[in-house]
Amino acid sequence: MKASQFLFATLKETPNDADIASSQLMVRAGLIRKIASGLYIWLPMGLKVLKQVERVVREEMENIGAQELLMPMTQPSELWQTSGRFTDYGPELLRFVDRHERSFVLGPTHEEVITNLAKGELRSYKQLPVTFFQIQSKFRDEIRPRFGVMRAREFTMKDAYSFHIDQASLAETYQDMYDAYTRIFTRLGFDFRAVQADSGSIGGFASHEFHVLADSGEDDIVFSNVSDYAANIELAEAISTGERQAPTMTRQDIDTVEMPTCEAVADYLDLPLTKTVKTLIVNGETAEGEPQLVALILRGDHTLNEIKAEKLAEVAAPLTLASDADLKAAGLHKGYIGVDLDMPVLVDRAAAELSDFVAGANTVNKHSIGVNWERDAHITRIVDIRNVQEGDASPDGQGTLQIKRGIEVGHIFQLGDKYSQALGCSVSGEEGKPVTLMMGCYGIGVSRIIAAAIEQNHDANGILWPTTPDVKDSLAPFEVAIVPMKSKEETVMQTATALYDALKARGVNVLLDDRNERPGVKFADLELIGVPHRVIVSDRNLAEDKYEHVNRRTGEKQLLSHDELLAALGCE
Amino acid sequence: MKASQFLFATLKETPNDADIASSQLMVRAGLIRKIASGLYIWLPMGLKVLKQVERVVREEMENIGAQELLMPMTQPSELWQTSGRFTDYGPELLRFVDRHERSFVLGPTHEEVITNLAKGELRSYKQLPVTFFQIQSKFRDEIRPRFGVMRAREFTMKDAYSFHIDQASLAETYQDMYDAYTRIFTRLGFDFRAVQADSGSIGGFASHEFHVLADSGEDDIVFSNVSDYAANIELAEAISTGERQAPTMTRQDIDTVEMPTCEAVADYLDLPLTKTVKTLIVNGETAEGEPQLVALILRGDHTLNEIKAEKLAEVAAPLTLASDADLKAAGLHKGYIGVDLDMPVLVDRAAAELSDFVAGANTVNKHSIGVNWERDAHITRIVDIRNVQEGDASPDGQGTLQIKRGIEVGHIFQLGDKYSQALGCSVSGEEGKPVTLMMGCYGIGVSRIIAAAIEQNHDANGILWPTTPDVKDSLAPFEVAIVPMKSKEETVMQTATALYDALKARGVNVLLDDRNERPGVKFADLELIGVPHRVIVSDRNLAEDKYEHVNRRTGEKQLLSHDELLAALGCE
Repeated sequence: MKASQFLFATLKETPNDADIASSQLMVRAGLIRKIASGLYIWLPMGLKVLKQVERVVREEMENIGAQELLMPMTQPSELWQTSGRFTDYGPELLRFVDRHERSFVLGPTHEEVITNLAKGELRSYKQLPVTFFQIQSKFRDEIRPRFGVMRAREFTMKDAYSFHIDQASLAETYQDMYDAYTRIFTRLGFDFRAVQADSGSIGGFASHEFHVLADSGEDDIVFSNVSDYAANIELAEAISTGERQAPTMTRQDIDTVEMPTCEAVADYLDLPLTKTVKTLIVNGETAEGEPQLVALILRGDHTLNEIKAEKLAEVAAPLTLASDADLKAAGLHKGYIGVDLDMPVLVDRAAAELSDFVAGANTVNKHSIGVNWERDAHITRIVDIRNVQEGDASPDGQGTLQIKRGIEVGHIFQLGDKYSQALGCSVSGEEGKPVTLMMGCYGIGVSRIIAAAIEQNHDANGILWPTTPDVKDSLAPFEVAIVPMKSKEETVMQTATALYDALKARGVNVLLDDRNERPGVKFADLELIGVPHRVIVSDRNLAEDKYEHVNRRTGEKQLLSHDELLAALGCE
Repeated sequence: MKASQFLFATLKETPNDADIASSQLMVRAGLIRKIASGLYIWLPMGLKVLKQVERVVREEMENIGAQELLMPMTQPSELWQTSGRFTDYGPELLRFVDRHERSFVLGPTHEEVITNLAKGELRSYKQLPVTFFQIQSKFRDEIRPRFGVMRAREFTMKDAYSFHIDQASLAETYQDMYDAYTRIFTRLGFDFRAVQADSGSIGGFASHEFHVLADSGEDDIVFSNVSDYAANIELAEAISTGERQAPTMTRQDIDTVEMPTCEAVADYLDLPLTKTVKTLIVNGETAEGEPQLVALILRGDHTLNEIKAEKLAEVAAPLTLASDADLKAAGLHKGYIGVDLDMPVLVDRAAAELSDFVAGANTVNKHSIGVNWERDAHITRIVDIRNVQEGDASPDGQGTLQIKRGIEVGHIFQLGDKYSQALGCSVSGEEGKPVTLMMGCYGIGVSRIIAAAIEQNHDANGILWPTTPDVKDSLAPFEVAIVPMKSKEETVMQTATALYDALKARGVNVLLDDRNERPGVKFADLELIGVPHRVIVSDRNLAEDKYEHVNRRTGEKQLLSHDELLAALGCE
């Protein structure tokens, strides 16, 4: 490609509304332009990158026998009503009516449409297992679109769906998909982790997320420092010794005027936070479905894991704190709620291990010290409801936990029969009877991957694309840029063009920067865009038959002969 | 590809709601499935065809230096309000509000978005000309979606937009685009015509449509039988000799009871229809903008061209007939309106050539015979307002006109500065002053092309894909299908697989039909899908070292040796 014939839409200034490094750099490097909140144009420079991701993803999907198809973005609401998600999905599901007042949604995902298709096309167990995928635009009406294409409203996804006669077949395809995802993110040169994940509102049982590690990630990823254990913090189990010291103190109420937090009380008493507990009163349900208040008790230094809490039978989903009115009616005072309560008392494993601890006294401006379980308060159930912390024991019993930030770029689910049940998707089984199909679904955020790559790889001068095992898989829009320095000699341009032609003939993704700009402007642009190799052709170097080669990642500059240059660019 | 690992979703029955040959065959051959009115899934078989079209279109766009980008389907309504099309476009423009009550449209086209982008990115005449294109999903809320993907609501378009400093540059790119379109449709093996077209509501001056000729086409295409002249009937000029015979008859009113049509009167008088005229009263405007009635007069055998009529200064757009109340108020009687009228009388060229003709007498149940212009009635203006007919003289003076039906698959426009004016898109010109850009826009209906190909090429057994100059450009989902006949001998399957591997290695798009189906079912499926070459491997033929080759188009069957077969498949 010649730069004079390609849109270089680089910007010197950081746009005001770009909030993180990747969204700033993607706009500045001319990969994308915003047209409205959460809506972006992929400029020619960005689309080259997007297509590279699509190619690698497509190849690995085809590798495991997945068949590509293309579903419309617009979907009839009836299908979502049948699955129950028309109401469950919430306001992120964009709904509209057409000119005939028929209701439609803009698809944020395609389980309903594909299950309905499978229902019509699949007749016999002999056609199974089968996996379909598409690479297509999705729409999600985010309440607060942010982080550029990372959390946009219209975005490109690869979504795949598999259909099976039984769980064993689903587990097999799930593993193929896990392996394919691992190959995709390895080929793209990412530092990533596959972690156990909560399957969330989409339903089902097994689920893994693929995270690109980056400080700006929205998720906390938990790993063992010695084993393979890895999980999203939402799911990571907090284990306990199950041991508790015998009481040594008697319970006593003390004045804690205007100290409604564990921190304030611990500070006042000169005790570690780990000797305090906090009680959260949330809305729950009895076994009979009657509303009730439920107490969740955690050690003072721990944080509530809402995903875990929501799954408890006693607690109502989505998790909500009790209202002030309800607290008042129960005679409770915020900041001073104790542990001896007339409601289900669900105590986190770590809080249940405490003895001689500090808690609220159920009286304003008073806490109790020397509190002990069973003697002073009844535990209804010991549960795991906290987020793990760095240094906690790994749940697999091997080593301790570390926590890093991750950007979710892929997610695979075993859906079970949630959608096939709802939409009546069955085939004739081996014995001739109808069998409801088992399903898996598998997503990759194609546009999001690019933002994640940049979050993980950039410096003060711009983008550094990940180094890929095979240069053909590189996300860089151009792998090599040739910059002819201005010269009165024709030979500079001739040599640059000859080199350009030679590299193109060898299949190198090369740019000839023939723009009518100062070299400094070109160098800055090429660094911003993250072109891995820059080759400068100048009078001075040509006099010695040399080219100057600059490595974008290391900044290293070398004067190389023609053959040395080809070798440095991987063309032997 | 092995058929056992690919979704064959063929149907024996014609679906009830598929209205024309292509939509029936596309559903029956398992290329598409309808999920709602005007919304289709592209099944794996269909997506292969769609991608072939995309590849050819993309290559020819890149060939003329167009740069690919990708704009979102969702567009902020503000841009459409600025261009004026938010109201002008009508109900086909789907509008919706997001969760924050902001107004958006689903893009049926992208002039506004691309012009707004160009406004931000283009600074100087030195960056011009520049052409951008995308291949992307569009949405048009058709009142009556029909003909399968031909007139769907969500569909794939290639849309391109060019920006220029002046008309001369626009004309140059327009010609490049014309040539690229010609190459695209030639490569795809179509019988097509590029015709002059009306630029319609999109505005602008020059415009050509590309039509695939097919009897089921929605448009009438007009050609000269000797020259290059070709136009959409909407635009084709009806020329005249400008001569008129002198009157030989006196005007006389006769009774024509219950004969309100030219046909009835001509029949009654035993005169050719060409000796009658008909008068249409339509709504118009005076030069001052006051409403007025306008008479349009045509020869009895001619039909009104509404596009031409709408462009007349005296006529209001859109064209509407005068109401019964207005006719009554003017003392006129439907079916008996004459030519001597107290309003602008706009006479078609052919009607103006008549002498001694028959017209209404402005009295119920009476017509006049022996009518002559000027003597009996005043002509305000002679105009061209009729559709040409087969046998008319070609407007270029060479030969006579033929008319065929066409399916519009491409349309190129010179837009001028309509959008760049409205959206304020200018650059600094050669003299440093801002210059409003000239624009072109260029569309291809990527999904529609496939339906058009099938309309033009099918028989009773199914699809016949067009024969392409280069087999690599063929739209057939598979070029060759190998069918191993059931056999107790392992050799049949081994030979079939060896041939499959050999053809794959030569880059042939080959299918091994290893499905567990009877040969008759496979043959019917392969004919339905339109696989050009079928190769049957059987015990009987293998005994003679032969393969049976069946040509889908001609039905010709041949027993060929391995080498002869390779030659027949174009692999020497």
